[in-house]
Amino acid sequence: MNGCIFCKIISGEAPAFRVLEDEHCVAFLDIAPANPGHCLVVPRQHASNLWEISEEAYEHVSRTVHRVATLLRVALAPDGINVNNSTGEAAGQEVLHLHSHVVPRWRGDDLRPMWSASRASSHELERLQARLIAVR
Amino acid sequence: MNGCIFCKIISGEAPAFRVLEDEHCVAFLDIAPANPGHCLVVPRQHASNLWEISEEAYEHVSRTVHRVATLLRVALAPDGINVNNSTGEAAGQEVLHLHSHVVPRWRGDDLRPMWSASRASSHELERLQARLIAVR
Repeated sequence: MNGCIFCKIISGEAPAFRVLEDEHCVAFLDIAPANPGHCLVVPRQHASNLWEISEEAYEHVSRTVHRVATLLRVALAPDGINVNNSTGEAAGQEVLHLHSHVVPRWRGDDLRPMWSASRASSHELERLQARLIAVR
Repeated sequence: MNGCIFCKIISGEAPAFRVLEDEHCVAFLDIAPANPGHCLVVPRQHASNLWEISEEAYEHVSRTVHRVATLLRVALAPDGINVNNSTGEAAGQEVLHLHSHVVPRWRGDDLRPMWSASRASSHELERLQARLIAVR
């Protein structure tokens, strides 16, 4: 898409530290990494987010995420991995071309959880379940 | 797997607020939600995390994540969605059965980013790229 930085990276018009690619997706290093080795996986065909991409194209992204997670394990021996995807600016999405973050984790690194867990009431959960089931 | 709470939910031995399922995966409400409607998607066949699950099984999880994200959009009209998966305790994984969080987001909710972005040097990124390419 015109003006999309990730489309430019995919086409080779903009530089990136590419680490893995296939016919559907490209994986490259995030230039503002949460941890060393932090990669982004993007579909070659522009789709702005999870609500706009097809199921099939998202499965291709996920397959590449799986491969990048294995690559990071072999190359950097992290203690764990976070995979994060943000849809919409309210969710923290900055570049409006779908991208999954694959972030190697080490014990004691300085990443923090996105939320603090506190238990919901059964009444509230039942009410939400009903709303979700109603629109299936 | 014996003693796994998510295996018990899948089999019906433990209760859960199920919202969507197919032959490969089950989606249910997180009882300690980050936001109302926060769902977990789990594969029916036990796999502890992204490093242990097959590519194909992870694609099935991702397909269900895609469907849950659409369901949440229709039912709750959130402003965005976060999809998060944690592999390993160092990454914040608590239940050792792979699960993807699908979290509806609203502008002004109280979730926070996991990291603060700061740009890495090109030298550091080149070094990491070389380490990753070397093990492909």
